[in-house]
Amino acid sequence: MIRELNMFGRRKKRVYLDWAAATPLLPEAKAAMLPFLSGDFGNPSAIHKEGSVARQAVEGARDKVARTFKVRPEFITFTSGGTEANNIAILGSIKKLVESGSEYCDLEVVTTKIEHPSVSRAFDELESLGVKVKYVAVDETGLINLTALRELLSAKTALVSVSYINSEIGTIQKLHAIKKVLKEAEEVYGNSILFHVDAAQAPLWVNCQFDTTQADYLALDAAKCCGPKGVGVLVQSRRAAVSPVTFGGGQEAGLRPGTENVAGVVGAAVALEAAQADWKSRQETISLVRDQAIKYLLAEVPEALINGAFGADRVANNINISLPLYDTEFMAVVLDKHGFAVSTKSACSGAGGGESAVVKEISADPSRAASTLRITSGSDTTLKDLQRLTAVLRKHLDKMSAYIK
Amino acid sequence: MIRELNMFGRRKKRVYLDWAAATPLLPEAKAAMLPFLSGDFGNPSAIHKEGSVARQAVEGARDKVARTFKVRPEFITFTSGGTEANNIAILGSIKKLVESGSEYCDLEVVTTKIEHPSVSRAFDELESLGVKVKYVAVDETGLINLTALRELLSAKTALVSVSYINSEIGTIQKLHAIKKVLKEAEEVYGNSILFHVDAAQAPLWVNCQFDTTQADYLALDAAKCCGPKGVGVLVQSRRAAVSPVTFGGGQEAGLRPGTENVAGVVGAAVALEAAQADWKSRQETISLVRDQAIKYLLAEVPEALINGAFGADRVANNINISLPLYDTEFMAVVLDKHGFAVSTKSACSGAGGGESAVVKEISADPSRAASTLRITSGSDTTLKDLQRLTAVLRKHLDKMSAYIK
Repeated sequence: MIRELNMFGRRKKRVYLDWAAATPLLPEAKAAMLPFLSGDFGNPSAIHKEGSVARQAVEGARDKVARTFKVRPEFITFTSGGTEANNIAILGSIKKLVESGSEYCDLEVVTTKIEHPSVSRAFDELESLGVKVKYVAVDETGLINLTALRELLSAKTALVSVSYINSEIGTIQKLHAIKKVLKEAEEVYGNSILFHVDAAQAPLWVNCQFDTTQADYLALDAAKCCGPKGVGVLVQSRRAAVSPVTFGGGQEAGLRPGTENVAGVVGAAVALEAAQADWKSRQETISLVRDQAIKYLLAEVPEALINGAFGADRVANNINISLPLYDTEFMAVVLDKHGFAVSTKSACSGAGGGESAVVKEISADPSRAASTLRITSGSDTTLKDLQRLTAVLRKHLDKMSAYIK
Repeated sequence: MIRELNMFGRRKKRVYLDWAAATPLLPEAKAAMLPFLSGDFGNPSAIHKEGSVARQAVEGARDKVARTFKVRPEFITFTSGGTEANNIAILGSIKKLVESGSEYCDLEVVTTKIEHPSVSRAFDELESLGVKVKYVAVDETGLINLTALRELLSAKTALVSVSYINSEIGTIQKLHAIKKVLKEAEEVYGNSILFHVDAAQAPLWVNCQFDTTQADYLALDAAKCCGPKGVGVLVQSRRAAVSPVTFGGGQEAGLRPGTENVAGVVGAAVALEAAQADWKSRQETISLVRDQAIKYLLAEVPEALINGAFGADRVANNINISLPLYDTEFMAVVLDKHGFAVSTKSACSGAGGGESAVVKEISADPSRAASTLRITSGSDTTLKDLQRLTAVLRKHLDKMSAYIK
């Protein structure tokens, strides 16, 4: 935690409220990593003792992740992050179909316009290869319209991709209901519709046991749930197939070549296990904080518009508001000066401002999309933290309102 | 360093001789990483102080790497390893040409049959897309035949790829001489022949200053030069262009999306800088050890055949021998039991034995290719270490020779 001196020379506590962008590394994850950043530096593919120690660490981590998500270890692939896990699932599943005889132009895929760039840009790439990309409508809270989804599916549909939890507005998709629609379509059309779920934001807050997600491909990012940066996980179903998109040694069953990041995967496994072990109590505690904080915020800052869902359809730690006509990029800087780390939208959507594509899609309101503020709590965030933030926000708005026409 | 008790209960020193597969993390690199595995966990794309600290760390690391290789920081891309750096260079450069109007089937690329799988399999992928892949002959030491190279180049040649140092036999390619051939061909044919150099094995032992390598794309792997696993670097020339092969946020100028592995890139920069700062004295010391050790080995084990070059064309830390008819996989296990970590070939060429594709190509002798032993020293390896290894080897061969017909 960064602390700085306040004007009285005392350390002022920073309140970090950008957990959707990055999370602190769990001390237990760090402790598990350290031997592999020290004496145990072997290459897991090597035949000797140093190699064997590294191999056991990687496979131990794989077992831990497999137990966490309740799948067999061979369905776990370690990647360099959630972005790569999403890319392998999306590009690799379609590549596999093409290598098996399908033509790009005969394949259709379905996703939404509110996905993370590592999903949406992978679909842009598929589109450039000739795949038909269909976008299913979402409602004003970001939930997928199931009727619209049903209408988009066809005998050509090869892949449907949604995020478990939207990284900006925190909407939790109803995966079971979506899967039901896919299954019905599979029966009608007689094809196999693979289901990709970007679960990067999920492990700390919802149940990610693989069968409960109903996914064929579940993409995870350790750095978003108190693990190290640079490690992701792709969980696959028995029927899911995927061709590699990068090439090299046979590591990770040939799907993700390159010497394994031993320390990283060991830390990731510890973090993912801990995230899922406690998700329920964490979710219960922090969703209460969130609900009280939203109530307080709306009372103190009535000009704020909540983006996304209320209650159970919203991830416990997410508050996303718009303050139309205000410059929320500036607001984030002011809050930062007062000790609060928040963001305007997802970090991966790029620095340099610009409107939120997610809020634009759900609201169809450019001024709302251009004035978002995303506040994502951690497991230690208190109502008082969020009330103090609200007070700073109120003061800032009062000062700025003179300049708003 | 792993130590174990010998029969007298004393700690027995392990002699790690597989530096081509993995290297110990430099303590200074680890120290530089630790803050980013602790309090400084921000996302470099975030607007707040935590983000800014992370951004400064990543850009500081980029500056350090840029100074090390003497290029501008914007020509440095951090990747998840050497494999990804090679993939981006090879697949991304050709992708860029195709996106600019070329057809895959109108493009030719040239490489050798002794490359690392992260290069050779990327070329297999290009071949499957319709690109003509030509293989230039190498001599019995692994050096590229320049006359043969000249004859393979044409107006269609888009890319030539070689490794600076072969990861199995340690042959150092004459990059200047190769580049001269490419330049002459560019003048004759009027095209641009991009030059990719896989330099994963290079930074500890040879000068990698970018202009001395003559490369358009230089791929590096931190884990091979005392940096952390899971971090690579792609250095590009001003004229080199590349399209992304994975998709997501705009990190690394859009070329390598995904939240930056902050701790990793910081550690990688320290390791690469240290590797290059001392390469000359390290090379001088260890090449003397190597030459004396080879002399000793050939005297004690006259049945050993040296694979690769002698003297200056061989990287300082590499000894690669064949012991035809002997099972060197078993031999590596026996040496391991006696405290010596060696390998048979490159770790990325896969576990489970099998012949060395590199030695097969240079020797055209299957029994020689099936009986390789690779001994790669570190900066602390002594002649005595290698003499002790030779004694164990001699004893083992004497024992086994009864079983060799």
